[in-house]
Amino acid sequence: MKIPSSSIPRISLYYRAILSLEAVSVTSSQQLATLTGCSAAQVRKDLAYFGQFGRPGSGYNIEVLKSELKKILGIDRKWEVALVGVGNLGSALLTYRGFKTQGFSIKCAFDNDTKKVNKVKQGIRIKDIDELERTVKSKGINIAIVAVPRGAAQGVIDRLISSGIKAILNLAPIRPRVPKGIELLNIDLSIELERLTYFLRQSANPLRG
Amino acid sequence: MKIPSSSIPRISLYYRAILSLEAVSVTSSQQLATLTGCSAAQVRKDLAYFGQFGRPGSGYNIEVLKSELKKILGIDRKWEVALVGVGNLGSALLTYRGFKTQGFSIKCAFDNDTKKVNKVKQGIRIKDIDELERTVKSKGINIAIVAVPRGAAQGVIDRLISSGIKAILNLAPIRPRVPKGIELLNIDLSIELERLTYFLRQSANPLRG
Repeated sequence: MKIPSSSIPRISLYYRAILSLEAVSVTSSQQLATLTGCSAAQVRKDLAYFGQFGRPGSGYNIEVLKSELKKILGIDRKWEVALVGVGNLGSALLTYRGFKTQGFSIKCAFDNDTKKVNKVKQGIRIKDIDELERTVKSKGINIAIVAVPRGAAQGVIDRLISSGIKAILNLAPIRPRVPKGIELLNIDLSIELERLTYFLRQSANPLRG
Repeated sequence: MKIPSSSIPRISLYYRAILSLEAVSVTSSQQLATLTGCSAAQVRKDLAYFGQFGRPGSGYNIEVLKSELKKILGIDRKWEVALVGVGNLGSALLTYRGFKTQGFSIKCAFDNDTKKVNKVKQGIRIKDIDELERTVKSKGINIAIVAVPRGAAQGVIDRLISSGIKAILNLAPIRPRVPKGIELLNIDLSIELERLTYFLRQSANPLRG
């Protein structure tokens, strides 16, 4: 059975919903649905991909479900992350509290701007981009976030992969080429805005009858 | 025929691919596939949702396709955007060049930190959050980006909607409640990282045989 990749961010939502439940030991697909805005049928379907977590009619044991969802998401361990690009966006990521609560820790940050190199931000000394390969390899880091300008992104990503990075969150507005076996997620904020203007356009002036 | 919402960001990619083509007047689904990493079948299917743009065997006229894709995406006009929250992430968005090239312009920015209010960033004077309703209404702005901390997000979003905002890009790590007819997109970076660790976990130590 192939697990649709769209179910993974919903698993993240269910996990967060469970964390928000206090002083209860059992939850239900209906409760998780209410907390996440998904349907109860969707909750049951997503969870069923990964096993039998509850008994019909008696709901899900919260401690068991929490521990299983953490395993599914791979956040039953800490992950060290490399950040490339410490402009405004990269600096925002260094201060982003949401990472640490989920077990992600930015361990090193690189920039090619000599004015930024050796400055300390959020306890991280920014390194010259020339130290990328050596640092990533020696720390055995698997995940990188790329927050460099468009023109620099493909080169940086090639260097990250040759240093042993297996998974990349790319925030530069390009679609980089990566070899098979490397997980790549692109977030392009202007493409996200176009999803919104598409809907605004459709509701104001539908293209189709 | 219902258009799947997943096809919209691909339309954005095809549009960007066309912009990158120089000195040619015709393109093909195969060329757009190569440039975007989608399959040629996917390109044909996505474009077919919106009409008949090419003749079999002769490809797509680039000028026609460009103009039609802009209309579909709603970027055949300029859009003014309100930004709420001018911390690190909000500041990064103010300097983000990708918006302007697609016709998005951040017209006003709000914060509740009196140390930030009245400071000018990227030509925008940051306003007190108390001016939100009046400003958004008087400028007739439809789109907002929310980059405030978790605890403030739902309240800000309620205020934006009551001021006439129709579409929201939410970067705070919550799933806000919005009424029907309001378009909401959530980007939660730690959920995105969990999509990566899910895959790392599966490839290192599959949960299922």
